[in-house]
Amino acid sequence: MNGGDGASSYARNSSYQRGAIEAAEALLRNEINARLDITNHSFSSFTIADFGCSSGPNTVIAVDIIIQALYHKFTSSLPNTTTPQFQVFFNDVSHTDFNALFALLPPQRPYFVAGVPGSFYGNLFPKAHLNLAYSSCALCWLSDLPSELTDTSSPAYNRGRIHYTGASAEVAQAYSSQYKKDIKLFLHARSQELAENGLMALIVPGVPDGFLDCQEASTGSEFDLLGSCLMDMAKEGIIEEEEVNSFNLPIYYTTPKELEDIIRSNGELKIDKMETLGSMDAQDTMPDLESRVLYLRAVLEGLVRTHFGHQILDDLFDRYALKLAHSSFILQPQTHKSIMIFALLSRCHDI
Amino acid sequence: MNGGDGASSYARNSSYQRGAIEAAEALLRNEINARLDITNHSFSSFTIADFGCSSGPNTVIAVDIIIQALYHKFTSSLPNTTTPQFQVFFNDVSHTDFNALFALLPPQRPYFVAGVPGSFYGNLFPKAHLNLAYSSCALCWLSDLPSELTDTSSPAYNRGRIHYTGASAEVAQAYSSQYKKDIKLFLHARSQELAENGLMALIVPGVPDGFLDCQEASTGSEFDLLGSCLMDMAKEGIIEEEEVNSFNLPIYYTTPKELEDIIRSNGELKIDKMETLGSMDAQDTMPDLESRVLYLRAVLEGLVRTHFGHQILDDLFDRYALKLAHSSFILQPQTHKSIMIFALLSRCHDI
Repeated sequence: MNGGDGASSYARNSSYQRGAIEAAEALLRNEINARLDITNHSFSSFTIADFGCSSGPNTVIAVDIIIQALYHKFTSSLPNTTTPQFQVFFNDVSHTDFNALFALLPPQRPYFVAGVPGSFYGNLFPKAHLNLAYSSCALCWLSDLPSELTDTSSPAYNRGRIHYTGASAEVAQAYSSQYKKDIKLFLHARSQELAENGLMALIVPGVPDGFLDCQEASTGSEFDLLGSCLMDMAKEGIIEEEEVNSFNLPIYYTTPKELEDIIRSNGELKIDKMETLGSMDAQDTMPDLESRVLYLRAVLEGLVRTHFGHQILDDLFDRYALKLAHSSFILQPQTHKSIMIFALLSRCHDI
Repeated sequence: MNGGDGASSYARNSSYQRGAIEAAEALLRNEINARLDITNHSFSSFTIADFGCSSGPNTVIAVDIIIQALYHKFTSSLPNTTTPQFQVFFNDVSHTDFNALFALLPPQRPYFVAGVPGSFYGNLFPKAHLNLAYSSCALCWLSDLPSELTDTSSPAYNRGRIHYTGASAEVAQAYSSQYKKDIKLFLHARSQELAENGLMALIVPGVPDGFLDCQEASTGSEFDLLGSCLMDMAKEGIIEEEEVNSFNLPIYYTTPKELEDIIRSNGELKIDKMETLGSMDAQDTMPDLESRVLYLRAVLEGLVRTHFGHQILDDLFDRYALKLAHSSFILQPQTHKSIMIFALLSRCHDI
């Protein structure tokens, strides 16, 4: 994600992710109220972690919703008890701009704050530390790219593309296998870190069942469009085709069914609730071409810069804007198939 | 403090502060071993906070010493119990370069990490959260400058100087009053945050009893020397004299007696041990002129830049180097009077 707050920063181009949080707001409030078991506990403090928080205004919006829901829960369920002090841990990978994140937090806030650098595919907290874990729009980032994608002898070699959309079934399968491995690591780590009666709310970007590697699932094929722009640049000799072949986006959009299967096979956390969020139409949150281009640039610029160098950025995203203007995502918005999956999990066993 | 790791960064010019940690190492180990009461508790995790950690290699060195001491304590005192998981909170003001700090941490480390932005003169953690609090070379930074220093009608108006060294008694008194207010806020906040049987180890830069506003206390008069360079620049018309009059360093060096009095008057924490660290000779840790200039620049450059602008920096510190070369700090190192005060505190009352 692009740091800072410049024109192509993630902080200023994350309305799509905000849409996800807004769509989940009522669910989050209701589920915290209905399912959080606080009756048998005396909390002096209550610990919340946002996994893959990123560095933008959405981070603060999500925490505000959660804290409000918790206040309501404690004051209505335990009116004669002092509401616990809240401590919020903001986690993301260590190159996240933590200073930018801290600067976004309101100076007067009803919670204590800490930033936790590191991959959420490993343990980040002591055992039984978290009363509420949360992750929004983050469980689509793979920990690593499957090595087959750049192995010329593999059937999953991803020649001329940067993502699995539109690629061979073997490429999609390699992505899917990596995703399963990653999510299992995530679930295992969180199952250790969740306190007794702790809850975990996930908002996971995905596609409907059956659309896993389908060209019509819009978010994926925006990547495909970007890949075709890179191939155009390779054909014009601006970059090497080999560079495109060795570049793949570490992003995967699961389906509700696949995610459910992974959680069930993990067996340490159980699904208390799972549903697809309504009204997650990219057309609503990013109504014009420019905002869609800026959104993709905010998310992917860092990856592109690292692989190809900064000098291709403007050219690439200009080409992308031209192609996008004539694409089905803009001309036929009803074909968008990206969804957000809401899942509420809790521990299967006592600690 | 200067961020990053460039030539004038704090990270590369903090050998004096490292000297303090090394001088305190044996004391820290011994006191943790002798005084930390772990027998009546079952710790699943053990929480450590470094207040005013700054962003440099010393941060990691101090935590390593503490973690080693804790491992020794747990394995020797409770050999049949699983050693708790350690969680280390690194605190400093929110403009500290937390990303640089996180990058300094060893990838394989026997503790979980979190960064906590904010002033340690207020609460930063829930009640009873910390098992071990620590602060080194940080409790000399005032939360704010006394307003009298820039009030032309006040006897504490600090004309032509940037610090209390060599100034009137009223100026020193204004600094001292602010320091007392600040340390009381620090102690009150920590007394709420320390867990039952929690300990707090402080390494506080100071001067010997009786040297409070004495010209001979070297660190203070290095500031005085810098102030005289600024006045020279004002006389040459490079900066305005008014700018020098309105610039004061928010740094105060207490004495063992004064610090003890403040702690006793607070009454929430008691002194388990207090002593002056031996071998804190700036000559040992900064043997040459260049390292002393770089040290001061690393510490003060940000303050000077904010007030006077970046364009004066090289000129100012070149002048400072010239003056320092002919000063008593270099020619008569035996006149150095700066000390480090080690204090071990614990709660007076149960929670």
